Amino acid sequence: MRIKMASANKTNYCIGCQKVDDAYFIFNSIYWNILLSEDQHNLGRCIVSAKRHAPSLSEITSEELLDFHQVVKTLESSIKKAFGAEMFNWGCLMNDAYKNTPPNPHVHWHLRPRYNYPVKFSGITFNDTEFAHHYTRTEHLTVSSKVRKEIISEIKKYL
Amino acid sequence: MRIKMASANKTNYCIGCQKVDDAYFIFNSIYWNILLSEDQHNLGRCIVSAKRHAPSLSEITSEELLDFHQVVKTLESSIKKAFGAEMFNWGCLMNDAYKNTPPNPHVHWHLRPRYNYPVKFSGITFNDTEFAHHYTRTEHLTVSSKVRKEIISEIKKYL
Repeated sequence: MRIKMASANKTNYCIGCQKVDDAYFIFNSIYWNILLSEDQHNLGRCIVSAKRHAPSLSEITSEELLDFHQVVKTLESSIKKAFGAEMFNWGCLMNDAYKNTPPNPHVHWHLRPRYNYPVKFSGITFNDTEFAHHYTRTEHLTVSSKVRKEIISEIKKYL
Repeated sequence: MRIKMASANKTNYCIGCQKVDDAYFIFNSIYWNILLSEDQHNLGRCIVSAKRHAPSLSEITSEELLDFHQVVKTLESSIKKAFGAEMFNWGCLMNDAYKNTPPNPHVHWHLRPRYNYPVKFSGITFNDTEFAHHYTRTEHLTVSSKVRKEIISEIKKYL
């Protein structure tokens, strides 16, 4: 699965139903795949994507939701330990799916770890310049595949 | 409870633990209060706030999460019927709490109904100019108390 949601521009194509891209894969649970986002402005930013094609938050099952909650606990704990995140923003948005006609949404969550100080990791200083505010930054911070591997490896140490 | 989160500027003050403001109240469930947001740029925008002081998504219970899911289903269905919302953005952010030292976050969700056409209601045309995109608009659309009552009443028709 590619992480760039904007690339889902074919009618009825569902990015969430594609094979998981190993380059971004962190771990999975019974019902969810957890992948590192291409944008790492918020160090450790992840996508938690439903394994099955559920089109809205109303339509996931209780089992899927409870399993998601375990993923929340695991990720918040591990990213705190890995990089010192102060808190976390969670969003289930799915706007990009509605750029297509007909839309074909697939439930996924965006996790943005938030930091109240600059974090140096793998030769890069990650600076959450909007801490304590809603993220308005639209430019992505794309890291090299080497750095991406190191970020994933650091999170996995604490799973 | 006031809905303007930015007004929570006292140390250790928790806006989520204040008495619910009847002027914004829509309904409640076992564990959650559901209130209309002051900003109605996205017609029917709501806040779903935990009744108890839970500081993070990791720290809510399974019972609270499953009850929240029933609220999701109820709100998505009723706002679709009331105003024709096309889809919904859900976010658990809590950034404002981190403007204070020490921060005192209280779990709440933002529900933004999204519309792919302008909606006329109570003499106002609500226009979701960023449909299919992440919301970047920072100005709030504050409606009169009369319009707010009518929005709440319309949602309640379909609960």
